[in-house]
Formats: sequence, C-alpha cells, structure tokens
Amino acid sequence: MAKVKAGLPQGTRDFSAEVVRKRNYIFNTIRNVFELYGFQPLETPAMENLDTLMGKYGDEGDKLIFKILNNGLDRVEKHQKAREDFETVLAGKNVDGITERALRYDLTIPFARYVAMNSGQLSFPFKRYQIQPVWRADRPQKGRYREFYQCDADVVGSNSLLNEVELVSIYAGAFERLGIDVTIKINNRKILTGIAEIIEEPNKIIEITTAIDKCDKIGIQGVKDELRNKGFTEEKISKLNDLIFFEADRILLINATQISFLKNGTEYSKSKNYQQGIEELEYIINYCEALNIANVKIDLSLARGLNYYTGTILEIKANGVQMGSIGGGGRYDDLTGLFGVPNLPGVGISFGVDRIYDVMEELKLFPEDVQVGTQVLFFNLGEAESKAAYNLVQQLRNSGVRCEIYPEQSKFDKQFKYADKKNIPYAVIIGTKELEEGNCTIKNLKSGEQQTVAQAILGEMKFDI
Amino acid sequence: MAKVKAGLPQGTRDFSAEVVRKRNYIFNTIRNVFELYGFQPLETPAMENLDTLMGKYGDEGDKLIFKILNNGLDRVEKHQKAREDFETVLAGKNVDGITERALRYDLTIPFARYVAMNSGQLSFPFKRYQIQPVWRADRPQKGRYREFYQCDADVVGSNSLLNEVELVSIYAGAFERLGIDVTIKINNRKILTGIAEIIEEPNKIIEITTAIDKCDKIGIQGVKDELRNKGFTEEKISKLNDLIFFEADRILLINATQISFLKNGTEYSKSKNYQQGIEELEYIINYCEALNIANVKIDLSLARGLNYYTGTILEIKANGVQMGSIGGGGRYDDLTGLFGVPNLPGVGISFGVDRIYDVMEELKLFPEDVQVGTQVLFFNLGEAESKAAYNLVQQLRNSGVRCEIYPEQSKFDKQFKYADKKNIPYAVIIGTKELEEGNCTIKNLKSGEQQTVAQAILGEMKFDI
Repeated sequence: MAKVKAGLPQGTRDFSAEVVRKRNYIFNTIRNVFELYGFQPLETPAMENLDTLMGKYGDEGDKLIFKILNNGLDRVEKHQKAREDFETVLAGKNVDGITERALRYDLTIPFARYVAMNSGQLSFPFKRYQIQPVWRADRPQKGRYREFYQCDADVVGSNSLLNEVELVSIYAGAFERLGIDVTIKINNRKILTGIAEIIEEPNKIIEITTAIDKCDKIGIQGVKDELRNKGFTEEKISKLNDLIFFEADRILLINATQISFLKNGTEYSKSKNYQQGIEELEYIINYCEALNIANVKIDLSLARGLNYYTGTILEIKANGVQMGSIGGGGRYDDLTGLFGVPNLPGVGISFGVDRIYDVMEELKLFPEDVQVGTQVLFFNLGEAESKAAYNLVQQLRNSGVRCEIYPEQSKFDKQFKYADKKNIPYAVIIGTKELEEGNCTIKNLKSGEQQTVAQAILGEMKFDI
Repeated sequence: MAKVKAGLPQGTRDFSAEVVRKRNYIFNTIRNVFELYGFQPLETPAMENLDTLMGKYGDEGDKLIFKILNNGLDRVEKHQKAREDFETVLAGKNVDGITERALRYDLTIPFARYVAMNSGQLSFPFKRYQIQPVWRADRPQKGRYREFYQCDADVVGSNSLLNEVELVSIYAGAFERLGIDVTIKINNRKILTGIAEIIEEPNKIIEITTAIDKCDKIGIQGVKDELRNKGFTEEKISKLNDLIFFEADRILLINATQISFLKNGTEYSKSKNYQQGIEELEYIINYCEALNIANVKIDLSLARGLNYYTGTILEIKANGVQMGSIGGGGRYDDLTGLFGVPNLPGVGISFGVDRIYDVMEELKLFPEDVQVGTQVLFFNLGEAESKAAYNLVQQLRNSGVRCEIYPEQSKFDKQFKYADKKNIPYAVIIGTKELEEGNCTIKNLKSGEQQTVAQAILGEMKFDI
C-alpha cells in the first residue's frame, strides 16, 4: 500500500489529552448548570438531509455547508445513473443526484427539525440543551475553524418571561463557576422596532440594527456615517442617538435609572412595541435584582445581527480581556414553521466554547487537577518487583486513585522522564531493597520529597494533586 | 422559503434525553476505568484527508467511506475548474478534483495518523483512549447504523505483556461496574500460525482463521465443510480439530489444564510460533489468576477476522443474552508504518457501545437515577406564589438539586401532566394558602404521599430518586 504523508484537513484540529480535559471541564460545568435548571440533553446526527439545511442560512450559508457525495458516485464508470447525475450538474442544473446529505451547520436547525418531527410526543414547554460539533467550509483563520463545538440551551412552547430570567441566571451561574467575570448585556428587539417607528422609519429596522451592531468595531461616529449613507437625515440620526443613548455617560446609568428614564421619556407613549419592550426589560431586570444577579446591563445599542430574534436579546462580554462576545441569544417567534409546525415561540442561549477556552487560558482559570491525568506512576524494576507493585496498583485503583505501572523494565531515568512528560505528580518505587523489606518509596515529583512506607499501608496514603 | 418535510437521513438517529443519559452512563463508566489505568483522552476531527483513509479498509471499506464534496462544486456553472474536475470523473479517471476529504470510518486509522504526525512529541509507551462517532455507508438494518460510536483504548510503543494484562483487567473492571456478566475469551494469533505450520499448511492461515471465525454461526461441522471446500484433507481437518479442540468437552477444561495440556502435547516442540503463543497465553492467564479475574477463558477457536493482529486476541461475550461479541481487540506489530513511522507495535481493545446498550436494556441494568433528569418541579400558581417559589428553586439549585419552575401560570393538572411526562419524581406546591402560611407542600409523584413543611426548611429536605 502506498505510504501517505500524515496530515490534517485545513481548519480542523486534534485535541490532545490536556486540551480534551480542559474542554470537558468547560462542557461539564455548563452541562451541570443546564441540568440544575431542568434542561434535558438532545443529540442529533452529524448528517442531515440536504433540504433540511439548504436555504436556512442565506446564500452565504448555503455555500459554507459541507455536502456529502452520494455513495457509489466515485465509480461513475460503472454507474449509468451516476453518469447522468454528473451530466445534470455539468448542465448547471441541480446537484441532487450527487449529494443528498450534508454536515450539520449549527444546532438550531437540527433542533427545529427534531421538534417538528416529534411535536406529537414532546411535552411543552420543551427545554433542551445540546453540545455537539458543527462544520462550516469557512476560510480558516486564527480562532475560526471548520469543525467547532456549539453549546446551546433553548425553551420552546412558552411565552413566559420567566424563561428569560432562567437563561440569564444560567449565564450568571455558569460563568461564576468557570471563574470568568462577565457582563450580561440585555436589550429587547421590540424597543429597537419601536424606535424605528418613533423616528418614522419603521421599514428601516434592518438598516438600523445592522448599523448599531457595528458600534463596537466602528464607534459611534462610524455608525452615524453608515446611517447617513443609508439616507437617514441628521435629525433622525440625532434622535436615534438620543433614544439608543450611544453617549457613554448615558450608558453608565444603572439599570433601574435607565428604565425610569425610558418610561418617563416623551416617546414612551408613541409606540406600543417600544412600551412592550421596555416593560419586558423591566420585568427581567427586577427579577435579576431580586436574585442578586449583579452583572446584567441594559444596552440599547445591542442589536444581534440575526433577524429571527423578536424579543429579548442577550450577549456576554468577558471583562478584562480583548475578546468578542463569548455567548449570546434571544427570543424568537417561530422555530419550526419552516418544517410545517407553526407558532412555536422560544428563547435560547449559546456559549462560545472556543473563545471561553481562550479566555480561561489567558486568565489561567483552569484548576490544577484538570491538568493532571495519572496521579501515580509505579516504577517497573524487575519481574518480582513489578508483581509486588502491580498488586498495589490494583489496590489504589480500587480506591479511586488513577495510576499506572511502567510496562517495561527500563532504566530508572527513562521511567522518570515518562512520569515527567506525562505530568504525573507521584512515583512509587519498589526496588530489590523495598521488596525485601516489604516497603515502597513514595516520591513527590514536584517537590522532590520522598518517604518510605510499608506496602501494607500504601492504600491509606493520599495522592493529592 | 419552501416548507420541508422534517426527516432524518437513513441509518442515523436522534438521541432523546433518556437515551443520552443512558449512553453517557456507559461512556462515563468506561472512561473512568480507562483513566484509572492511566489512559489519556484523544479527540480527532470528524473529517480526514481522503488519502489518509482510502486503501486502509480493503475495497469494500473504500466503498463505505462517506466522501465530502469539495466546496464550490455545486456551482459548477460558475467554475471552469469544477467543470474540468467533473469531466475527469466522467472519464472514469479519478475523483480527487471533486472530493479530498472524508468522514472518519473508524478510530484506529485517525489514531495512527495522529501518532505518526506527533511521534516526535509523544512519550512512549503512549496510552490513549478515544470515544467518538464514526460513519459508514453500510446498508442500514436492525442494530447497524451509518453513524455510531466507537470506544477504543490502545497502548503503542511497548511489547510488554503487562499491557495485555492491563487491558483484560480494564474489560473485567468496566463490565463489573456496568453489571454485565461477561466471558473474556482469549487466544493468541501465534498459536494459530503455529498450528498452520504443524499441519504443514503455513500459507493457509487466512483460510483457517476465516473458517474457525464462523464457528459460532455455522458450528463445528460447518467449519469442517468449509475447510474441505478449501481443499484441506480429512487428516489435516481432524488434526486441526484436535489442536484447536473444537469439541465441547475440551473447551470446558479450565485454563490451567488447557495450558498444561498444550505444553505437554507432542506438537509443542514442532513450532516456535506455537510455543511462543502458548507461553504468552500462560503469562497473561497466571497474572489474571493472581488478580482474581475469574471470567477469562482460553478459546483456541477464537480467531478475530482482522489480519493485522499478530499476538494476543480478545473477545467479549455477554453471558445470558443472545448477542454477538460486545468487545474485542488484540496485539498488532505495526500501527503507523503506512504513515512512514515503522516498527511501532501496540495492543488495543474496543467496546461495542450500541450492543452494550441493548444488553443493559434487555437485562434492565441501568440504575434508576440515570433515568431521572429534573428532581423537583415547582408549580406556578400565580405571580406572588411563583416569586416565592422561585427563591426556593434557586436555594435548592445552589445545594445541587436539579429543579425547575413551570414557566406559565397554567391549570393544576397541566402542570402535573408535565411532571409526569418528564418523569419528575417530586412536586413542590405553593398556592395561596401555603403562601399565607409560609409553607409549601411536597408531593412524591410516584408514591402519592405528600407533606407540608415550612419554606424556611425546604432546603434541608432530601429529594432522593
């Protein structure tokens, strides 16, 4: 068989033991919080039917979906049907004949497909979380991969704002457990819709949200310029500026003050959407204060690109690091309409796991024990010695200590190197002398301290990390 | 946008909450045992370069590999290059132009690719485990899926038989924890090679192993018939029968007796391979007896199809259920030669998770608590009532109880139905009366018992499953 140069597809990654452990620490922490809040796990297949995915992510998205070649097509010379299918493609018609399946592009559409397929059996409100990889044929670059995990929680079939409160509380709880200091930015799409109505540009809501969405990148002046280019008058721009209070000093107002400011504003009476959005915001803010969730911050300039959001929108900013949002979500009116099950509203959040990982690395937030696999290495110093050692190995394993015995009877320093490279904190050594005396030597490989104890009591020793 | 009938690709599955929890119970149990033995996790991408996978699994395997369509080809009319690539395919030449990546077909080749890529950095012996899905374009049928998980552990870079002992011990420990009574069948490829030499058919080892591999399915007579068709003489067949002792009474011999029987047989001197295989078997058997691993059983008729096995071979049979092997593995001489890193021997085992799941369902081995998500549902019976309830919800969550509050103020029985459908064991009810009195009513939804306690002490209550 021809030898192959071992390599990885562009934009994909192998995860070594240390990275897997750190990633699992993040996944498990978030999973535990999801479960505390009564969210249940769901897993969907990596492949979906092509027509389930196509047309859901815009033209750009369609291009970035990884499509799977139908089986047998790579032996076209043997298959008349395949030949015809390829000719259809060449004729610039459809690709149905050569690809009918594709890789999951996000977790939302498969979730919608699942709910639509099972709506008869599910009990609503349906609360699910899903932590799985997705695939996108994006151009790879720093921090952008073609395979990456998404980590979502959604409640569908309920309009209650209590769901928003729960999700804000999940964000607060998960990031507290991870040790990341975050700001939970909150806004409501109805407020932005209302503002568009108030400045008498109800049909330009997209232009407005797209512009203010860029505020972080291009700054307030940049947003104003973009609005000018979009044909907004100076009057309307300054009105927008007033309402969304871009100005820094206004943003600094505490939530309660912002709410009363908004409710007492002359515009409050001018738009039902505006009023409703502010009332929803107030309900959530009050609940969060009752729950002592201190890091929620109203930010009317928060827009979230996605147009399917219709109510509350949320975004997570990690404080003290240069990093885009590490989470976001919001309320939507119709999850499953596309799959023939209309009027199913919901609200969901997502955790940006790759960025959370980078933040935790930068701030050194991973606990020490997450980075240790094997706790104890037993040296292998001869047939009789290793037999004695092996019984102790099994004893420790039975009491939950992760340990291994070096399988070969190799030189001392080779076995030390192995322990060192694997970051194993303790070595247990049974040589000829220890064997005779029924002892073993425990060496702390970090501090260098060592002590000799009777083999009989090794099981009682602690091997703390 | 056109509405789509929600459906799943053939041979793929959604996993609902209950199934995910049961599967994770299996994965976590096995993972914990792997870690106790010092194996470290590895994760590789779902996609590999096509040339990494092609030619590794035989012609049949190549056909079953899911290939990914290169990006942009579905817009062939816009891409001259794509047009040419398709024309190459149509000419019956190669498919390189239209597909360069494929989905992982097993975990062994990606592991080999990883070791070859990183052999400079890794510390050997390298012990890794890997639990990830693989994809095969097989015809779907009962128990055979196009997406399924594999669960492997391998040690590479060591010839020590202690590794075999460790892996046998991992099998014994993992299945004991899962509560599955298994027989760990063990044999050695060298014994079979030796037997082929002894009957003077050294080049027919494949025919012999393929035939005896079918013993479970077609029985001893069937195997003999197949050997006849393959041109073996009656004399050689009866010799084979003697050596491999197909006959039931011989199979019943205890391991030690089998070993001495083998060592004292007149054939022992006739083949180095035969001798070496028996000695290796003896070493492992003796160790297992010292460790009180009682369910290991020598079975010389165990062959394991795969021809890359060169030493010990293992297979797991679940006792008391009709089910093929639920695990298997063995020793191989050369993991990474195909990727330009020669002479790296290893030994590995695999757990058949889907079959293990079916066995545990059939024998009802999943613990009760694995099947419960949310422990407590708080009813929502009004604005003031739910506010009071919500504080208690957060208290319980802080002490680790998984609970939720029904988000809507719905009818009593609707909230009961929700708890029932979600299999939630406890309900906490705060109505007008409880609110006034500062109490809450705890109802055990299985037994029907209920008690009223002060809200202040709810946090001290146990909500055992």
